[in-house]
Amino acid sequence: MIKANDPTLHSWIQIAPDSDFPIQNLPFGIFQTDMKDPRVGVAIGEYVLDLCVLGRYDMFVLLDIDPTIFHRPYLNDFIALGKPVWRAVRNRVSELLRNTNDEISGNSELMHECLIKRSEVEMLMPVKVGDYTDFYSSQAHASNVGTMFRDPENALLPNWKHMPVGYHGRASSIVVSGTPIHRPNGQTKAPEAELPTFGPTAQLDFELEMAFIAGKDTPLGTSISPSHAEEYIFGLVLFNDWSARDIQAWEYQPLGPFLGKSFASSISPWVVTLDALEPFRVHGPEQVPSPLPYLSSGGHHNYDINLEVLLETEKGVETRICRTNFRHMYWNMQQQLAHQTSNGCNIRVGDMFASGTISGSEKGTFGSMLELTRGGTQPLRLVDGTERSFINDNDTVIMRGYGEHHGIRIGFGEVRTKVLPAFLQEK
Amino acid sequence: MIKANDPTLHSWIQIAPDSDFPIQNLPFGIFQTDMKDPRVGVAIGEYVLDLCVLGRYDMFVLLDIDPTIFHRPYLNDFIALGKPVWRAVRNRVSELLRNTNDEISGNSELMHECLIKRSEVEMLMPVKVGDYTDFYSSQAHASNVGTMFRDPENALLPNWKHMPVGYHGRASSIVVSGTPIHRPNGQTKAPEAELPTFGPTAQLDFELEMAFIAGKDTPLGTSISPSHAEEYIFGLVLFNDWSARDIQAWEYQPLGPFLGKSFASSISPWVVTLDALEPFRVHGPEQVPSPLPYLSSGGHHNYDINLEVLLETEKGVETRICRTNFRHMYWNMQQQLAHQTSNGCNIRVGDMFASGTISGSEKGTFGSMLELTRGGTQPLRLVDGTERSFINDNDTVIMRGYGEHHGIRIGFGEVRTKVLPAFLQEK
Repeated sequence: MIKANDPTLHSWIQIAPDSDFPIQNLPFGIFQTDMKDPRVGVAIGEYVLDLCVLGRYDMFVLLDIDPTIFHRPYLNDFIALGKPVWRAVRNRVSELLRNTNDEISGNSELMHECLIKRSEVEMLMPVKVGDYTDFYSSQAHASNVGTMFRDPENALLPNWKHMPVGYHGRASSIVVSGTPIHRPNGQTKAPEAELPTFGPTAQLDFELEMAFIAGKDTPLGTSISPSHAEEYIFGLVLFNDWSARDIQAWEYQPLGPFLGKSFASSISPWVVTLDALEPFRVHGPEQVPSPLPYLSSGGHHNYDINLEVLLETEKGVETRICRTNFRHMYWNMQQQLAHQTSNGCNIRVGDMFASGTISGSEKGTFGSMLELTRGGTQPLRLVDGTERSFINDNDTVIMRGYGEHHGIRIGFGEVRTKVLPAFLQEK
Repeated sequence: MIKANDPTLHSWIQIAPDSDFPIQNLPFGIFQTDMKDPRVGVAIGEYVLDLCVLGRYDMFVLLDIDPTIFHRPYLNDFIALGKPVWRAVRNRVSELLRNTNDEISGNSELMHECLIKRSEVEMLMPVKVGDYTDFYSSQAHASNVGTMFRDPENALLPNWKHMPVGYHGRASSIVVSGTPIHRPNGQTKAPEAELPTFGPTAQLDFELEMAFIAGKDTPLGTSISPSHAEEYIFGLVLFNDWSARDIQAWEYQPLGPFLGKSFASSISPWVVTLDALEPFRVHGPEQVPSPLPYLSSGGHHNYDINLEVLLETEKGVETRICRTNFRHMYWNMQQQLAHQTSNGCNIRVGDMFASGTISGSEKGTFGSMLELTRGGTQPLRLVDGTERSFINDNDTVIMRGYGEHHGIRIGFGEVRTKVLPAFLQEK
């Protein structure tokens, strides 16, 4: 069988060489149009392939799956069918799109119905998220934040190198790319002030992260070993963990981040499968001290994915403010999932696990304004000459990511979010 | 119209004076039997009233609701119909159960079908929980823990009197009363040890809490004022926030509780409506300093609910180890919900908001072993002569609660959970 990742594959659809969505990618998402209610699609070049329509034309008949599984507002039911089914569907879509296949390309009625320009669809949340965990797995980020919020001499807390530290986030406020968010209100207290005040945050920030999506349930009271963890991962998205630093700083002791984060998190709409990311596996950094056996994870479990953050001003001027790489993470996804379930905590299809801010060790590689501007003290100069300590109203933050191997680019598209002014508080 | 709370009401069903479920209570839950799949029921004395059957017999026909709404595995769809509908259904059930009404009592076929002994049904999770927040709103508890974990001189952190501090918990592992849990494994490090180790917690603890359930969605980017918060609350349950103190102590800096909590939380199965708790409203403690306007909440917004915790050993010997009252909470539910949404975070029907451990100011009123035994240093002596620093394998922890007014007792039943030994870690 020809592998869906084979770099020699070509599609009968014209695909630009710098597209994130060649025939080797085939990420899954949920889209709708004026004519079509929410359903499962696959991105290919400039198009969305409508799996609902393919099912209706019996294109999956050999796979023995209920084709109405693609006529759902979330991917969860499809994901719950299991990894053999995702693989079979992705392989079948790959086959249908190959330049050697005419099942779609030779049927103009079907082709017209199943291919829609991506520019003409609205992308929705790909999954219904049950629980969402945010890890803190970049050593450079944890060191940078530890230095600024606490003590430069002991930037990494004693537990950090022994476990992938994480916390539970708010699932209800995870929104898809293109959904504008409001600057949050909140309680803050300047160090020198006697009393706190309430109002719009003055330190709105992004955090560049990636998140993986659980592909399989576990029962309560069982754990996942690192060596089995990949069986439980469906795919990855870009993740912007919006943060209000002044709210966070005043609230977070002793129980961790809460309202400084829960106003919104934004994700990219296309879920790139772990299978599609196979060519980008790399060794992670050496872990010293060696993790405890329940976190032991030899081999190549990091991913070489180039990441960038752009800030677009109200007038549409874009400045790239960060370039970094997902390979920098100290703790990998296997270890994060093993840690999460080590106490018997169950996971469910659609659960989301974000990496924590991805920062490299040099300034241009930091994944948050907090780090890029050293807590706002060294503002960034944008292309249009204006400066930013944090994010302004009407700014748009854009994150993009892709791997490249043998000339094949597997990308995530983008997560793009405009910041609207604070809303009026209910009286 | 006769009020469903009227203390002069009596039912044609015999109800013991010390029952938690007189005709003035009428809490909602989800039950199943060997013969019946999951559905909505109301507790009355020793019985469950099957609302599905009542719907089939046209008993709700004047309310103009789809009777299949009661044939669901969770209350969420029913709750989403809105407060006027819950009220109308509860009032109608009250009417049907009154000794002056014979619509059920005069129809032996219906009566036989709609009333099932509570001892013969299995209670299930009443709601599908989207997000779960755990607050930290008892001053005595926060002071006790701050003294033990940090600094007795500054037991309350500076933010505590300015906001209801809280954090996001894990929704997937919330289980209903009767579900046994396993002692969790986890990473711990004794203060004097050089390196952490992994294994079963040696400090398994409960936390006595109450939780309210959201009854109405809000859109992202809007907030709820304290004066409107009660419109968003469906009802309350007892909540046992299981905690592993040694895991928690090592992991919780800087991002808060994670695996020390996420292995399980247990709730009582019957949701007592806010309407049923109306007679128990009391003033909360004076709040000094005055909260900021967005948290300002005059009037009677605490509830006088007696609470107790019992520990039952493997041989069935029960010892009451705590008696306290929900009225002690410093921050009330109105303020918790206003705070949660003050940054625009949306809530959804079924979301759960736990109070934090409910402790009074004296030893017998503390809501956790951590406080009752001063961190395990002063073990409790049980009725059978054995001692406990924390919870042993095969112990059962039972929490009960009720309000009493004009001789009418409105109770929550119980949340009862047996602790099984730690599970084997996957290899």
